[in-house]
Amino acid sequence: MFTIISSGGLSVDIFNKIQDIVTLNRVSRDPAELYCYSYDASYISSSPDYVVMPHSTQEVSAIVKLASQYHIPIVPRGAGTGLSGGAVPISGGIVLDMSRMNKLQKIDIPNLQVLVEPGLIHARLNSALEPYGFFFPPDPGSSEMCTLGGFIANGGSGMRSVKYGTVTRYVLDLEVVLPDGEIIRTGSMTMKSASGYDLTALMVGSEGTLGIITAARLKIHPIPKARKVVLAHFNDLEAAGRTVPAIMSQGIVPSACELMDSTTIQALNIYDPGLDIPECEALLLIEVDGTPCSIDSDAVDIANCCRALGAFDINTAGSVSGQQEIWKARRLVGAVMTRLYPDKTRVYIGEDIAVPLSAIPAMLKDIRSISSRYNITIMTYGHAGDGNLHTGMAIDILDTYQYEQLKQVADDIHRAALRNGGTVSGEHGIGCVREAYMEQEHGRGLDVMKQIKKALDPHNIMNPQKVGLE
Amino acid sequence: MFTIISSGGLSVDIFNKIQDIVTLNRVSRDPAELYCYSYDASYISSSPDYVVMPHSTQEVSAIVKLASQYHIPIVPRGAGTGLSGGAVPISGGIVLDMSRMNKLQKIDIPNLQVLVEPGLIHARLNSALEPYGFFFPPDPGSSEMCTLGGFIANGGSGMRSVKYGTVTRYVLDLEVVLPDGEIIRTGSMTMKSASGYDLTALMVGSEGTLGIITAARLKIHPIPKARKVVLAHFNDLEAAGRTVPAIMSQGIVPSACELMDSTTIQALNIYDPGLDIPECEALLLIEVDGTPCSIDSDAVDIANCCRALGAFDINTAGSVSGQQEIWKARRLVGAVMTRLYPDKTRVYIGEDIAVPLSAIPAMLKDIRSISSRYNITIMTYGHAGDGNLHTGMAIDILDTYQYEQLKQVADDIHRAALRNGGTVSGEHGIGCVREAYMEQEHGRGLDVMKQIKKALDPHNIMNPQKVGLE
Repeated sequence: MFTIISSGGLSVDIFNKIQDIVTLNRVSRDPAELYCYSYDASYISSSPDYVVMPHSTQEVSAIVKLASQYHIPIVPRGAGTGLSGGAVPISGGIVLDMSRMNKLQKIDIPNLQVLVEPGLIHARLNSALEPYGFFFPPDPGSSEMCTLGGFIANGGSGMRSVKYGTVTRYVLDLEVVLPDGEIIRTGSMTMKSASGYDLTALMVGSEGTLGIITAARLKIHPIPKARKVVLAHFNDLEAAGRTVPAIMSQGIVPSACELMDSTTIQALNIYDPGLDIPECEALLLIEVDGTPCSIDSDAVDIANCCRALGAFDINTAGSVSGQQEIWKARRLVGAVMTRLYPDKTRVYIGEDIAVPLSAIPAMLKDIRSISSRYNITIMTYGHAGDGNLHTGMAIDILDTYQYEQLKQVADDIHRAALRNGGTVSGEHGIGCVREAYMEQEHGRGLDVMKQIKKALDPHNIMNPQKVGLE
Repeated sequence: MFTIISSGGLSVDIFNKIQDIVTLNRVSRDPAELYCYSYDASYISSSPDYVVMPHSTQEVSAIVKLASQYHIPIVPRGAGTGLSGGAVPISGGIVLDMSRMNKLQKIDIPNLQVLVEPGLIHARLNSALEPYGFFFPPDPGSSEMCTLGGFIANGGSGMRSVKYGTVTRYVLDLEVVLPDGEIIRTGSMTMKSASGYDLTALMVGSEGTLGIITAARLKIHPIPKARKVVLAHFNDLEAAGRTVPAIMSQGIVPSACELMDSTTIQALNIYDPGLDIPECEALLLIEVDGTPCSIDSDAVDIANCCRALGAFDINTAGSVSGQQEIWKARRLVGAVMTRLYPDKTRVYIGEDIAVPLSAIPAMLKDIRSISSRYNITIMTYGHAGDGNLHTGMAIDILDTYQYEQLKQVADDIHRAALRNGGTVSGEHGIGCVREAYMEQEHGRGLDVMKQIKKALDPHNIMNPQKVGLE
């Protein structure tokens, strides 16, 4: 598609031009290799024309300048764990595989920060920080696989965002290659700044549509001295939904508050009867961190709070092994569905809505009614502390009818989230799978996003056909 | 200047046009009134042509549409407490006094948020939240006076930002009137979102150059159960500078860490001998919050940490009155200088630099050497937890020579901050008093800011000649 480009009467061989920038073994147009780069963890795919594996910011800049000159689409890619098609090259062109720029360049404890390359795997940063007593708090389920660059570009978060916020809180500075190949820094080494527009926050979550992140300076946080988990079972969804504000009214900010609905609990119990979770409408898994004594008093207050809201079978785990057991069950959830239906595949679609806290019960009821309307089992779990609910649905993906039904289900879920005052993506991003809802969600705000995109990327080469910007 | 505008052969009386939008008593061109709107708390001033006091978003939109049609500069103003000339109408035109749009529209505990109009005074929000056990954490020195709209537009923070971050962390959604008069919302009611560009963060700190904030949805936080303050005196600046990372390495995030240098301590002791602060190079005031037991153990750990770094005379205040006493001394600091020199005026200039934590000692030494070079007393205090240092200088403002010297001092301080890897503004904003440093600080990043400004405000009517955007 973008192999030979006619430019001013001359034919230009793009492959040769790329080879002039990177060594031969770091660029490919081999169909087998291109196929590997045609998908992420979502349900869509499209092949690039080239895959390039840069080693340096300068190489990225040179590739982007080439792409800019010949108006070739260019799509940055981390580990391909995204669930929204963000790294899928819908318009072909060049995929920039950033995974070789994966150094942890500096651990700088005196300045409470690290400097990383975008291809560094999330979990590796935390392993490296542990001996210093620090961690990088945003905690995605894909920590062992995803790259920090992709995580930042998607505006990710995870299980502890109720206390620790999303990734944007931790990004002090980004080195970004702009759509014209120029290199900028968006922030500084300081902990805060009120100097000019917050370009860092603009780049975080922009999904590679405004530039390519080539380095990131990230704030780090002390590892808390102690953690404790409270499990509470509810038969009243409304009461479960009121728990987080009720706990906070006691002066406590939980470090996590995870919800599993009745379908999820059933699935977990079938998968591992040893878990023996009481059947109920909703299970809340509430974690606090702090000092050894504060977690004890917080756990007592939280248990009392849950009891007052009608919860039953309230358990506390303070030991490391007890907590690991509980978190293991929580981490199983994403996978458990396909074990229940071995002939089916879980499709990540409509899986990332977030609603205001008070709308969680209504949203759970809406999901249940959608489930019965289409006769498709939906298990719902997620971050009750911030209203981010993940839905799990499994189908025979070769069955066209089921596939169409599933798309309808996802559409209904997205529209219900917006009706409940929510967003179609809490942490997975828009990519190309949630584009259709951008106008309804943002109204004229979407026009502002388009104006910014057009100003910075007039040829629309940076990850085109994403985020509803066209 | 913008009284009668010639448009397509017709003369347009702008005053009449404004009167068509707001009632007569909410627009003025009386010179005495215009004079009151010609300055903020910085050292510069310039008169507007009109002052308008809108009551509603619709009125703001209509005024902006008028300004857009006739290319009239329009400058939003909160309480005028800004220290950077941000609300000063450098190019004349319309000042929009937002102070009448001051309602606390909703306290929404179940959703952990409030909805406010931009003219609401910062401290009033916290008074209203206190009975519910919640607060709005960013804590500016001007809390009793400043409006939330101005605070947000300046990207403010304050004494507790080491733990609680800056205002941007708490803004969920803004209603903004764009430079063409259109009204957008930048976010939603959800606690987080990964849907599209972060327009909220872009608007926070944009100082009215991209639009006018007409409503804000803010996240609130539980009031901690207990607080405790540790005072530690250092004779070694390097050691004082290493304290925050050392405390954090113990797993503790202080809720505040304020620094006062030797000059500030001398000034405080002369002002109120009862304070009896030991003379030393630096005093650190370290606050922790949490549960009654966690603050005790944290305070012990912090005291040990300070002692290991060579601090002496380490005191702890757990009682409310003891803490109030300490914070009173800290709050006096800004004012104490002019009490020492009753014939002089403190000029807020070069007063808001921030540097990386490890550069605090070097920056303090640089300030001291600048002080002796110009023979001007400089007291330095500020937020050691995030590297934000405030410098206090007092002169006879009618003495032209002293004034020119002071400008040189400020210039040297700004350039030293940048040399130390810092920023010229930690929390007060750029306005028109720090414009000269934008290119040095941001390099090509400033071009990106200019591109965004031009895309959203092609006629450059929104607070022109600010933030170095021209």
